[in-house]
Amino acid sequence: MYVFIMKRKWDSVKEKLEKSSASFKSVELYGKQLMIVWPDEEAIRIDDPSIEIKVRVKTPFVLSGNEWKKEKTIVDVNGVEIGGNDVVVAAGPCAVESEEQVFEVAKGVKRAGAKFLRGGAYKPRTSPFSFQGLGPKGIEILTKASESTGLPTVTELLDARDLPYFDRVNMIQIGARNSQNFTLLRDVGKYGKPVLLKRGMGNTVDEWLSSADYVLAEGNGSVVLCERGIRTFEHSTRFTIDIGGMIVAKRLSHLPVCADPSHPAGDRELVRSMALASIAAGADMLLIEVHPEPEKALSDSKQQLTISMFEELMNQIRGLSKVIGRRI
Amino acid sequence: MYVFIMKRKWDSVKEKLEKSSASFKSVELYGKQLMIVWPDEEAIRIDDPSIEIKVRVKTPFVLSGNEWKKEKTIVDVNGVEIGGNDVVVAAGPCAVESEEQVFEVAKGVKRAGAKFLRGGAYKPRTSPFSFQGLGPKGIEILTKASESTGLPTVTELLDARDLPYFDRVNMIQIGARNSQNFTLLRDVGKYGKPVLLKRGMGNTVDEWLSSADYVLAEGNGSVVLCERGIRTFEHSTRFTIDIGGMIVAKRLSHLPVCADPSHPAGDRELVRSMALASIAAGADMLLIEVHPEPEKALSDSKQQLTISMFEELMNQIRGLSKVIGRRI
Amino acid sequence: MYVFIMKRKWDSVKEKLEKSSASFKSVELYGKQLMIVWPDEEAIRIDDPSIEIKVRVKTPFVLSGNEWKKEKTIVDVNGVEIGGNDVVVAAGPCAVESEEQVFEVAKGVKRAGAKFLRGGAYKPRTSPFSFQGLGPKGIEILTKASESTGLPTVTELLDARDLPYFDRVNMIQIGARNSQNFTLLRDVGKYGKPVLLKRGMGNTVDEWLSSADYVLAEGNGSVVLCERGIRTFEHSTRFTIDIGGMIVAKRLSHLPVCADPSHPAGDRELVRSMALASIAAGADMLLIEVHPEPEKALSDSKQQLTISMFEELMNQIRGLSKVIGRRI
Amino acid sequence: MYVFIMKRKWDSVKEKLEKSSASFKSVELYGKQLMIVWPDEEAIRIDDPSIEIKVRVKTPFVLSGNEWKKEKTIVDVNGVEIGGNDVVVAAGPCAVESEEQVFEVAKGVKRAGAKFLRGGAYKPRTSPFSFQGLGPKGIEILTKASESTGLPTVTELLDARDLPYFDRVNMIQIGARNSQNFTLLRDVGKYGKPVLLKRGMGNTVDEWLSSADYVLAEGNGSVVLCERGIRTFEHSTRFTIDIGGMIVAKRLSHLPVCADPSHPAGDRELVRSMALASIAAGADMLLIEVHPEPEKALSDSKQQLTISMFEELMNQIRGLSKVIGRRI
Repeated sequence: MYVFIMKRKWDSVKEKLEKSSASFKSVELYGKQLMIVWPDEEAIRIDDPSIEIKVRVKTPFVLSGNEWKKEKTIVDVNGVEIGGNDVVVAAGPCAVESEEQVFEVAKGVKRAGAKFLRGGAYKPRTSPFSFQGLGPKGIEILTKASESTGLPTVTELLDARDLPYFDRVNMIQIGARNSQNFTLLRDVGKYGKPVLLKRGMGNTVDEWLSSADYVLAEGNGSVVLCERGIRTFEHSTRFTIDIGGMIVAKRLSHLPVCADPSHPAGDRELVRSMALASIAAGADMLLIEVHPEPEKALSDSKQQLTISMFEELMNQIRGLSKVIGRRI
Repeated sequence: MYVFIMKRKWDSVKEKLEKSSASFKSVELYGKQLMIVWPDEEAIRIDDPSIEIKVRVKTPFVLSGNEWKKEKTIVDVNGVEIGGNDVVVAAGPCAVESEEQVFEVAKGVKRAGAKFLRGGAYKPRTSPFSFQGLGPKGIEILTKASESTGLPTVTELLDARDLPYFDRVNMIQIGARNSQNFTLLRDVGKYGKPVLLKRGMGNTVDEWLSSADYVLAEGNGSVVLCERGIRTFEHSTRFTIDIGGMIVAKRLSHLPVCADPSHPAGDRELVRSMALASIAAGADMLLIEVHPEPEKALSDSKQQLTISMFEELMNQIRGLSKVIGRRI
Repeated sequence: MYVFIMKRKWDSVKEKLEKSSASFKSVELYGKQLMIVWPDEEAIRIDDPSIEIKVRVKTPFVLSGNEWKKEKTIVDVNGVEIGGNDVVVAAGPCAVESEEQVFEVAKGVKRAGAKFLRGGAYKPRTSPFSFQGLGPKGIEILTKASESTGLPTVTELLDARDLPYFDRVNMIQIGARNSQNFTLLRDVGKYGKPVLLKRGMGNTVDEWLSSADYVLAEGNGSVVLCERGIRTFEHSTRFTIDIGGMIVAKRLSHLPVCADPSHPAGDRELVRSMALASIAAGADMLLIEVHPEPEKALSDSKQQLTISMFEELMNQIRGLSKVIGRRI
Repeated sequence: MYVFIMKRKWDSVKEKLEKSSASFKSVELYGKQLMIVWPDEEAIRIDDPSIEIKVRVKTPFVLSGNEWKKEKTIVDVNGVEIGGNDVVVAAGPCAVESEEQVFEVAKGVKRAGAKFLRGGAYKPRTSPFSFQGLGPKGIEILTKASESTGLPTVTELLDARDLPYFDRVNMIQIGARNSQNFTLLRDVGKYGKPVLLKRGMGNTVDEWLSSADYVLAEGNGSVVLCERGIRTFEHSTRFTIDIGGMIVAKRLSHLPVCADPSHPAGDRELVRSMALASIAAGADMLLIEVHPEPEKALSDSKQQLTISMFEELMNQIRGLSKVIGRRI
């Protein structure tokens, strides 16, 4: 597959492509006009003065890979930069349950140094008989807490028909179960807001990056890759956090990487170890579940930290970040 | 969790439930009025003359399990019965490519004994730069081939917004990548047509049955569970067909089970072994990719059988079915 | 890597090899003089009239692969041929517990058509505080039952220092946990008796065949490859029987393949499905646990069949074998 | 299962046990007389003044668990303490190749702060046609380098018959492939030297700790548990380092835990990330492959660090250790 980085609009090259038997797709990304052309034998033949450079991409993923874009992408969400020197921590409850709950957590995690408020309004639950989230009401609560604290929000989208409610959400999470829901990926690509893309529990690193390609191919380059544990034979933790896979993704891609230690841990005592390990390995962002009273939570009660446990963890992350030349 | 099987409409019990702190959901399924009630401590307290029987369900899945419904469900698709004594084989190309291709395959597989025509019009491809299927045009071709041969069709749905095109499709496939796309599961539940529900490549048997619950909870009981291989460390086959998991699902559920040997095999030489193994183990249905000229296929070219290989396989399936007291 | 099949003894070629920088190993296998030579660049240069043919082997395994030996190997154990047209069934208790137990099972399984008596005298138990088997006394019981019924025996070896007790055992099993115990593999290679080599629960097909290479490299070509389930995320069965991997092994190798449905099933109801699936897929042999009173067994009580369940299974295997052109 | 911690020798309790139908095993461990007794119904009945305390152990592993021993075990190897406040780093070549190679590495890693010299003399290679190590000559080279630098040695044992050569080795490694070679585990238990016990690539945390039980049951309590990556579907790294599983083991056991980042990484660029992640998560020890000229190494050339890469890594580990209140 080839990425043609264009000097200017592609009218002339497009004409040539249409006459050839090549397949192609144009996209404007990171301020650049790109033309993706394949198969290679056809792409190599196309020549045109409008082409600045032709890059052959040998990986199965194309736009999310760094063969055509060497510099790291920094995803800016309301002034918070993900993928730069600072380690960014997003924290908040697994599920939005009430205004009191969210406000208490939002204030607590902000005080501790979090830069983002997370919280689920639409919950992807294995069973239809489990609590499915507050929906639009949950988004409203999150937004209020965001306005009150100044923390931007990240929350999960399950259905493109709910996008009208995501107007004031700052970053849209695509969960592990929708990591290969290509329809939804295209929809958030078109919607244009920054995307936190979780890796599917049964997906390889290559597939994860190809899923990012679906968002990027719509011209939306603001994607953060989030590792949240894969399915393996080991069940003493809920999922196996794949620190190696996360770092491979970081090295193959120009996109920032995030780790979610709460879901693989499935137990608040382990969250700390997995969070520190992720930062030490090179994660650009962390997504951590915090609840004012975890034992009363409506979902995932065992893996949510208390506010004071979160504060303690943030202190350790602060120290650790310094050692590796970063900050929170 | 409790399933209350009701004698009649639930107005009186509903009133009691609303006064209690129990959660509940009513559904009409297989001609029965059901009320799903939880948590157990609350459900056990509810009593009402409209309740015929209260069944305690201890598995994480509820409606798809056989604790409340002992008799096997037979899914009837245009007169073809899945889950009865006959083994049902669905065959056709991975992707619909042209009218000629589909007609040739449809006639060939019908002659060989297939009872269903399969073929992808909307293709869930890992990369946005791979062939994505013919879409509505593909559905139209399938429908014509179905009318010409009398074989009912099964084809994959990726986006509920495409449902208007599925009007004349007979059975809707939910693919492995959407196996936990709960939004889509609810949508096909409401749409009401029979559903072929593939197991996600990273999903446990319990999760698969819980996904079926999403369809059943909308009152659509016509679900066939389809095993298509799981992700394991072994990569000499494309996926590991989980014969044991398929049989566990059959024993825990009243729903019929289907095996797709084409995707895990990833190689036509292996399809035969996996197909025979699935039938011997107890599969009620098979889903097999057949292409008139596999080496020219636009997708999955290595795993599609020729028509004559399919005929030979059907002869073996016929003999095998007899041995285990079934027919095709 | 190259296999040189020699016309005669290799004195002249050995001299040339010693002068070159090639590595080599000579072995006499299946009545042929072989010289394994690597790396390829060196091997290709060696030429000598004593070499009948030079075969380049591109797989990571060498002797167990079929690049140098196209015809299937039949392993003969006391007149019972494994890998020929007949499907061979070995049956017996998980652990040898008493003379009465073994005699009862031996007579029962023989009557039902088994051709081999299996039974563990040395048991590889996860915990040192579990029943470790009767040891030499167990071997003695097996041998008596073998003499009384005429069934040859297969039993597991854990420690080469116990080989003196294996004098009258007919086939030596190397268990899954020792599948990469290269020391033990070499020892049974030298000992010379037929070997039933189980696949390690975390081993790929390539590794399994490379383990067979350790036995073959000692000149012992009587190896049967036994699939017994691999470790995957799915825990509704004890292990995931890898029917596909077993068939890949059969296609890549000249050695016969066996399936052990008892260990992956972990439940006697599932053993039947997995056994039939294995035969339908192409297994040459089955290894099945049978106990006169499974619920009283000292190990693996849930997965052992009663004698009458075994008889019923054998009837189904008999019918199935016919369909695929084989016999038991 | 019960552990009886005894006040004194067990003659009187042993008599009672022999009269009962209980199974039991006595062991002297960490200066304590212990009696392991099962099943629970029998154990609970035994009473005797020689018993100081009876501890019921509910985990499948017994001696390696912390239900009977709350205080952490510190393994002392020639004055180097593993499991205390200091993080201990063992470094050296994958395989011992020559005296020059080992001396150069030993001096380099010592200068950088390593406390142990590692190096393989007996190599467990997947294929019998790969370099199998220098054997006794390799041990001799390691020993000389150890005497010259003062670093204690850790090296792998594959066969108990080689133990005479391990006289001057300080710590014996049991590799992943022998992690359930119970014969070898008993042998090193009896031999008495400290053991570095790798987790099998297909083994659960519970099985790993049960393997440690085999060593401890022989009275040898000097065991360090080493995580080296498990087999999962993700193949972009050689194995998936299970940081979570390592920490679960540390929390369930009193034994120290070590991480080997070289094998799962399979690539020197990733070793750094995995090493730092392991220390951040709480590993007590690291095992790192270092080679003077990795690209010329006879095995695992891609994953060995150069001496200068190792120095740089040690500087980062030093900083990181401080942050979490430890030292190297």
